[in-house]
Amino acid sequence: MFHKNKKIIGVIGQGRSCSTKILSLAEEVGKEIAKREAIVICGGLKGVMEAVCKGAKQENGLTIGVIPGTQKESANKFVDIPIVTGLGEARNSVIVRTADILIAIGGRYGTLSEIAFALAFGKPVIGIHTWENIEGIIYKNHPCDAVETAFELLK
Amino acid sequence: MFHKNKKIIGVIGQGRSCSTKILSLAEEVGKEIAKREAIVICGGLKGVMEAVCKGAKQENGLTIGVIPGTQKESANKFVDIPIVTGLGEARNSVIVRTADILIAIGGRYGTLSEIAFALAFGKPVIGIHTWENIEGIIYKNHPCDAVETAFELLK
Amino acid sequence: MFHKNKKIIGVIGQGRSCSTKILSLAEEVGKEIAKREAIVICGGLKGVMEAVCKGAKQENGLTIGVIPGTQKESANKFVDIPIVTGLGEARNSVIVRTADILIAIGGRYGTLSEIAFALAFGKPVIGIHTWENIEGIIYKNHPCDAVETAFELLK
Amino acid sequence: MFHKNKKIIGVIGQGRSCSTKILSLAEEVGKEIAKREAIVICGGLKGVMEAVCKGAKQENGLTIGVIPGTQKESANKFVDIPIVTGLGEARNSVIVRTADILIAIGGRYGTLSEIAFALAFGKPVIGIHTWENIEGIIYKNHPCDAVETAFELLK
Repeated sequence: MFHKNKKIIGVIGQGRSCSTKILSLAEEVGKEIAKREAIVICGGLKGVMEAVCKGAKQENGLTIGVIPGTQKESANKFVDIPIVTGLGEARNSVIVRTADILIAIGGRYGTLSEIAFALAFGKPVIGIHTWENIEGIIYKNHPCDAVETAFELLK
Repeated sequence: MFHKNKKIIGVIGQGRSCSTKILSLAEEVGKEIAKREAIVICGGLKGVMEAVCKGAKQENGLTIGVIPGTQKESANKFVDIPIVTGLGEARNSVIVRTADILIAIGGRYGTLSEIAFALAFGKPVIGIHTWENIEGIIYKNHPCDAVETAFELLK
Repeated sequence: MFHKNKKIIGVIGQGRSCSTKILSLAEEVGKEIAKREAIVICGGLKGVMEAVCKGAKQENGLTIGVIPGTQKESANKFVDIPIVTGLGEARNSVIVRTADILIAIGGRYGTLSEIAFALAFGKPVIGIHTWENIEGIIYKNHPCDAVETAFELLK
Repeated sequence: MFHKNKKIIGVIGQGRSCSTKILSLAEEVGKEIAKREAIVICGGLKGVMEAVCKGAKQENGLTIGVIPGTQKESANKFVDIPIVTGLGEARNSVIVRTADILIAIGGRYGTLSEIAFALAFGKPVIGIHTWENIEGIIYKNHPCDAVETAFELLK
């Protein structure tokens, strides 16, 4: 029962037009999560979602991608387990409900919907270079800090 | 075919702990929408959702409530047509997808998720005393202005 | 409050490759529902869904189409109120949860999923030329009989 | 990347009032799937869902439970990864979309909705002591046969 009781960390951020800085932050976050033997859950597509999965796989982590469409092939290649929803953006609430805690990296409106769901459901959100001035987000600048804080909160 | 081609205006805002000011704004917005023969769609519960339906009914408008739970009895008494989803907060994306345009009044995190979905889907959001400094919201102070602006944008 | 407390009848059946007989049955069912001042809810697309809406509009009824996709233009032209879900086939559960009772006409696997949801939720299903030998379906041969039975059960 | 490209087998069946025979069939199916290094996905609750996960864990398999509610604690204790949807029965379409193939064991109306979705989406369904006379189901009597057939079809 090797995954049982592992923490599941939701990592959210935009799928397109990410700066290399944002992608590199996401990759680092993925690594740090996997080093702590937690599972990454994300939207499964490109951009931040792909970078965080890539990072997690470098440290031999497990990655889950909750896909909006109906084809598992739309998952990025670092997703181990594609959850295929066919729900469109309503799948955002599934990512948030499944995650024990959320880390937001960059992000546009889709990410904002996930931040909002998380805070509505009473789950902590750690933010790195993401939507500013949202009451409830715990802002951090560095991947290590962000992941460290997440695990502190999950103790 | 008396409702065919009517505009559908989504009105979003919190269900609990609303100030009387917010409730009164919502009621006014409901009246103004109904006067213009458009349909109100909302989350169907209490607070802003009830107030906007109440206002719309005063002007003989049509009101749709998209309920998160599984019991149509959870709809407020001013909802004409309860759409019962059983989807929980994922129903927020149904409200936004069905509405031609959104008006946000006050609101907490649930409302923020709807604002975010609307902007993600490219639909205009008019905001009255709602989340501040969200890029993309068109801010107005008065119900009349807000509804007027909505109908201008829908032309 | 002219729609308040009206019954909502779900009419389910296939969207493609319907025989003219099935389409004519659906149209008749739509008429009979509208004559009794109830609302038709359906999947909003072509085939049985279009025929039942067409029938309802001939008797000045109200029709709701719960669309799987994200474009309200995919609703057939006899839908008064398109509920746009973007949920794909998961929208079937919304149709069933919203309806007070279901009438199945013909139908393939999509219809079978709706029949199953209805019976799982404890809602009666009247069947006309639909899936045979499903325990729980009340089978009728004629539109009038089917609608009559539905209203008897809703008393 | 140890789970990448593993097959995902959906196992569906009722959550309550299962006979010991059905439970024992489900446990056997879980074992056979895990022996072939595929992943089990199911609804995550009791009955057939628990038995198939129990069987899979006996052979060190990986189990995913797609929960209808909002609490991951509702997953049975043999679920490794609870996907928490909050979507109610609409989560049935997520199980079916994620699975490469489905095995139905026993089952009532909820299972029938999943069978119907699978066949609607063009995915094979192997049935063991389940709904009879549904066109499209491949009927088998023994767990080994059923799993063998599933893997033949997935080649």
